[in-house]
Amino acid sequence: MNYNQRALELHEAAKGKIEVTSKVKLESKDDLSMAYTPGVAEPCRKIAANPEDVYKYTSKGNLVAVVSDGSAVLGLGNIGAKAAIPVMEGKAILFKAFANVDAFPICVESQEVDSIVQTVVQIAPVFGGINLEDISSPRCVEVERKLKELLDIPVFHDDQHGTAIVVCSALINALKIVNKKIEEIKIVINGAGSAGNAIARMLVDLGAKNILSCDRAGIISRNVKQKNWVQDEIALITNSNCTEGTLADAMDGADVFIGVSSKDAVSKEMVTSMNTDSIVFAMANPDPEIMPDLAKEAGARIVGTGRSDFANQINNVLAFPGIFRGALDAKASDINEAMKVAAVYAIADLISADELNDEYIIPSALNKSIGEKVATAVYKAAVDSGVSRV
Amino acid sequence: MNYNQRALELHEAAKGKIEVTSKVKLESKDDLSMAYTPGVAEPCRKIAANPEDVYKYTSKGNLVAVVSDGSAVLGLGNIGAKAAIPVMEGKAILFKAFANVDAFPICVESQEVDSIVQTVVQIAPVFGGINLEDISSPRCVEVERKLKELLDIPVFHDDQHGTAIVVCSALINALKIVNKKIEEIKIVINGAGSAGNAIARMLVDLGAKNILSCDRAGIISRNVKQKNWVQDEIALITNSNCTEGTLADAMDGADVFIGVSSKDAVSKEMVTSMNTDSIVFAMANPDPEIMPDLAKEAGARIVGTGRSDFANQINNVLAFPGIFRGALDAKASDINEAMKVAAVYAIADLISADELNDEYIIPSALNKSIGEKVATAVYKAAVDSGVSRV
Repeated sequence: MNYNQRALELHEAAKGKIEVTSKVKLESKDDLSMAYTPGVAEPCRKIAANPEDVYKYTSKGNLVAVVSDGSAVLGLGNIGAKAAIPVMEGKAILFKAFANVDAFPICVESQEVDSIVQTVVQIAPVFGGINLEDISSPRCVEVERKLKELLDIPVFHDDQHGTAIVVCSALINALKIVNKKIEEIKIVINGAGSAGNAIARMLVDLGAKNILSCDRAGIISRNVKQKNWVQDEIALITNSNCTEGTLADAMDGADVFIGVSSKDAVSKEMVTSMNTDSIVFAMANPDPEIMPDLAKEAGARIVGTGRSDFANQINNVLAFPGIFRGALDAKASDINEAMKVAAVYAIADLISADELNDEYIIPSALNKSIGEKVATAVYKAAVDSGVSRV
Repeated sequence: MNYNQRALELHEAAKGKIEVTSKVKLESKDDLSMAYTPGVAEPCRKIAANPEDVYKYTSKGNLVAVVSDGSAVLGLGNIGAKAAIPVMEGKAILFKAFANVDAFPICVESQEVDSIVQTVVQIAPVFGGINLEDISSPRCVEVERKLKELLDIPVFHDDQHGTAIVVCSALINALKIVNKKIEEIKIVINGAGSAGNAIARMLVDLGAKNILSCDRAGIISRNVKQKNWVQDEIALITNSNCTEGTLADAMDGADVFIGVSSKDAVSKEMVTSMNTDSIVFAMANPDPEIMPDLAKEAGARIVGTGRSDFANQINNVLAFPGIFRGALDAKASDINEAMKVAAVYAIADLISADELNDEYIIPSALNKSIGEKVATAVYKAAVDSGVSRV
């Protein structure tokens, strides 16, 4: 049976992938009286008197909404709320499998920023965190920022920050191998949407000084009017010399290429023009900017992609389950920069110095102990940065 | 340990009562590739091409939102969205335990009708049905009617229709015992909110001709201006002779009293003034309109309450799980009158003629086969009435 057919059969067999189950037993009359009326009135009264008790007596503290409007689903584009459900259910079961976080899909029947924001605010009472997913740029950034202002629970757009975190973990480890410092290298990011913006910001947080960001029109520069405000923001933190040129110009002499763009965006010649010991993360899905064998032939030393069938898979599942686990355990009001940076180093540190090699810079997504290690680091960062409420 | 303390400990031990679990395994790289990217893209494509496939490849067909704004929770009043969560989680696990329906609590941070409606419409894509709960009257009726118009999935306000259905099941069986016909009896309903309205409507559907509905001001009559439009509606289907008077006047000579009002609303004298073989359903919670022993002393033949510690508990859990099970199995676009009436008779028929007696007119809530029997009847009614999509 072919691949797609197997995926359809899996989804059809159980009619979807999630179920909502009870943590308490419901067998006797007494069970019913405790879990439902009249017993249930007492936790209600406690929460009415002290709203913080909602974390004590309900599932809120372990419950994350996986929110999408279906406008930018995988590589499929704007397929709408209903067609996005299989992805959001998939995300929900990853949360459960990798960090015992209960997650529930919320697919919103609107693609207006304010309407999405309003809906999420309205249903926030039962949730301990909001994970945004597959919302097109730049609206996703607006939705995230508005929700962060309005809500007292963590809001995290995985396509931006999850990607940025795992890219940075992989880069830190790759730099150890080639013995270069992040402050001294030249980095090119291709793709100037919300993920490219988040990656640039996180690299700056980690000390990077020389970043060129490109879109289809070439190198982004603050001297030139940009297409939208996300690109305006990128321009302000990258390319301090206001270099102009194409992606090929940018890559000449670069130490690191990070692609969040599209198939075949990078040629062998571009890779050959890079500095020695070059690092290429070609993460376009499913087809990378350049195939790993070609990149290697062209002289790249370390290559990563988004795919599980090549070495060095740069996969968000390394980050988001543990990040939410740590944030929920800390009853954090936010997932802030300190918590994200803590996740970057926690993931990088999962590979010891003697294990590290060109083909192994990032741990396997299947390693279920990762969630716990990331959670511990994120929890500590939440406490240290003052957003914890435990 | 006292009752309330035990309920608190139950809720605190597991931190709430629900969890979201996976129906598929996630152990190998292949599992991940099937349940998430890249395999998940194929069911997404199918749904994008044919929206009805959402029932085939996602959990929608078994998923019900339990929606409340926290404005009228149990007997606790307007305690708000957060304090309502324990009740909605409780309802969710009852759905699962009694009919294998996956239900998820949605507690809305707004008490404006249009805002609640808008929020539910926005998040409807992932759900196969909407169960409204503990929303104050008359807003609950408006919310329900607007949602029924806007959505193509069943919307059901349990406090109205679940209550009406179980009351009618109990009444049908009680009338068998006393050998009276619903068309010929005088029925008094005390409490003219949304539940009282739904009970009156369902009794009319079942053939009742002589109903007097009362609120604190006495018998409702279409000759008098009412407090709100729900009471206007009640006035139009009850009291065709435009009788005026108090609850005591109404009960004089009545065959049936149905209370959805408050503690001690009914005196012994009122019960004594009823017809022979009188039936008293005193369902105020937790304290009934008249205690069963007093009602019996006063001459009532058959007495029911909402409580599990007396005979004849009139409990919504007999109805809502099976009703949604049947509606979901039929992919029904609505829960219509025919389906509700089918549920009334299915519940009543669970007690055979030779089992039936004054102290046993309604089955025990703990009988887990009830959901299936109600579901079968409701499914058939959905098909027969043309709202099924299977």
